[in-house]
Amino acid sequence: MHTVSWDAEKTAVKLIDQRRLPASLEWVFCTTAAATAEAIRNMTVRGAPAIGITAAFGLAVEACRLSASAAPSASDFQTALETADDLLRASRPTAVNLAWVLDRLRPLWVESGVPPAAIAARLLNEALKMASEDIAINRQMAFYGASLIDDGDTIIHHCNTGALAAVDWGTALGCLRMAHEQGKKIHVLVDETRPRLQGARLTAWELTQWGIPFDIISDNMAGYFLRKGEVQKVFFGADRVAANGDVANKIGTYMLSLAAHANHVPVYAVLPTSTIDHSLPDGSLIPIEERDPREVLSIQLNGEMVVPQGATARNPAFDVTPHHLLSGIVTEAGILRPPFGRAIAQIFHHGESAP
Amino acid sequence: MHTVSWDAEKTAVKLIDQRRLPASLEWVFCTTAAATAEAIRNMTVRGAPAIGITAAFGLAVEACRLSASAAPSASDFQTALETADDLLRASRPTAVNLAWVLDRLRPLWVESGVPPAAIAARLLNEALKMASEDIAINRQMAFYGASLIDDGDTIIHHCNTGALAAVDWGTALGCLRMAHEQGKKIHVLVDETRPRLQGARLTAWELTQWGIPFDIISDNMAGYFLRKGEVQKVFFGADRVAANGDVANKIGTYMLSLAAHANHVPVYAVLPTSTIDHSLPDGSLIPIEERDPREVLSIQLNGEMVVPQGATARNPAFDVTPHHLLSGIVTEAGILRPPFGRAIAQIFHHGESAP
Repeated sequence: MHTVSWDAEKTAVKLIDQRRLPASLEWVFCTTAAATAEAIRNMTVRGAPAIGITAAFGLAVEACRLSASAAPSASDFQTALETADDLLRASRPTAVNLAWVLDRLRPLWVESGVPPAAIAARLLNEALKMASEDIAINRQMAFYGASLIDDGDTIIHHCNTGALAAVDWGTALGCLRMAHEQGKKIHVLVDETRPRLQGARLTAWELTQWGIPFDIISDNMAGYFLRKGEVQKVFFGADRVAANGDVANKIGTYMLSLAAHANHVPVYAVLPTSTIDHSLPDGSLIPIEERDPREVLSIQLNGEMVVPQGATARNPAFDVTPHHLLSGIVTEAGILRPPFGRAIAQIFHHGESAP
Repeated sequence: MHTVSWDAEKTAVKLIDQRRLPASLEWVFCTTAAATAEAIRNMTVRGAPAIGITAAFGLAVEACRLSASAAPSASDFQTALETADDLLRASRPTAVNLAWVLDRLRPLWVESGVPPAAIAARLLNEALKMASEDIAINRQMAFYGASLIDDGDTIIHHCNTGALAAVDWGTALGCLRMAHEQGKKIHVLVDETRPRLQGARLTAWELTQWGIPFDIISDNMAGYFLRKGEVQKVFFGADRVAANGDVANKIGTYMLSLAAHANHVPVYAVLPTSTIDHSLPDGSLIPIEERDPREVLSIQLNGEMVVPQGATARNPAFDVTPHHLLSGIVTEAGILRPPFGRAIAQIFHHGESAP
């Protein structure tokens, strides 16, 4: 049961509908690039690695559909894929994985003289390859990240970075799961992660599945537990990392990192190297999505709306944590340590093995 | 329309039911000390100054009821008031205003040889006096606090500290209201204040009444706006302040203060001197209430619970902000500046005028 997969029978991108969890486990099938882009935008699927792979399948499903249905001219086909690429790329602005995936697919379809059906097959094959690579990369990150976790640790985790945020296994939460499978006793304080509550809904659900003990806390409680000395590590994922190690991640990560740093608790960001955008020198250049204010205003207690009529809200979906607050960045290429700028440069100059 | 008042016709403590706001404006009437203590405990009334005055009326209502109904012996009457004092004092542990109020009333009823009816009259009179003092003190704080606010400021405010948190006018929010009435254009970023959402419910409602423009944000967004340079001041109240200036206040205040301090944005706590507990050398000694986890777990979206079955939570209701993160403490005796230990000592050694 993968978060994102290819349904060959339906010729569709198959997604777990994360908006319905944990109340019910339902699937959504996207048979066009436009529907796939909409599923990314409305957060049917979320998590930087997961939306990257979803976009890959989204381009593949469009190519399959076009080449199967109407035998389009090569030029119409190129134009249609260009439109699909634009749509998918624009579906969410902050996570760089979308661009990374679409850039990697681009050479497979911009080439002239290849029949549409052959291009569709190439795209589907490459998307499937990226999906299985994603699992392998995440397992490798989990392995490195678990080495940072000690028996008896209490760990604060922000947002959802588990199997649901990737094809399988996940990033930060994958490290916790690996530590648990290695027999380390851990306890997780789960940031509920307002406004979309990915922690209270999705991380709590995944931890329940795996049998890892946890307590949900509201995001603003993390400082209390850090200051009391009840927390040994902080773990989260990332949506985009700049060349100097500044990390854009789910809103709230910055305040959590400040509180951990002020209390000398190590902070780890866990991400595949495809999340590093080394074209950006620092985090101030990362575009931050501001989403519909209704996501903040729609909170309910006892079946009732809580905000007064006419209230307005702001809703930035991400923030940037400056690199000096981080103790380490866990990637499939190893654990990067400060100075992060140098460590990141080494990965990207190391030759062709790194993406 | 006061948050807390005396209903002479019903011989009752009259409270706005803050659990029902902003959906509806309803009153609760308490005719015993036990019912009053329960209203404090279940947060029908909340806010440090408000619960102090509520406790005063709670003791008065008990004395009135006992002396009117059964003509009790002096010793039974003393025992009953002792029980009432204990109940009210234990209703919530963090705010020192409860103890401050009950300590002030104590000499009026422990004296032997005074008839119960006379004691009841004394207690009621003193409670009424404290209620009107509270308004005067809050107006004075608002006056000092407004001097810190500049035309054009955007201010982050945490929890509710308005008229609803006191008898009238409020502490931190009173300063914003005064600045607004002085004609300064301000914009408020209202921390929603999980888990009880006093910001999204009560502060947003009060700001709507006064015509002060605002946007609600989730607590974890404050750091984003502070780092972007969009915020000029941070204001909040307090539930107990130690002799060195450490401030216990609604959960989330510490993380907010850290984020403001890291971005060189001034942080002001606003509180009557009755909130200062100069018997405690520092904030580590302030007892922190941990409330029912269901307050965290009961969050809903689209009419549905969001947490998975069996999930547990932690729910500390307050945290302690160390004094070095504060720029000033606004009291009715003036604006205290660092070093706060010295400034606080000066207030309490200044003679009889300060409480």
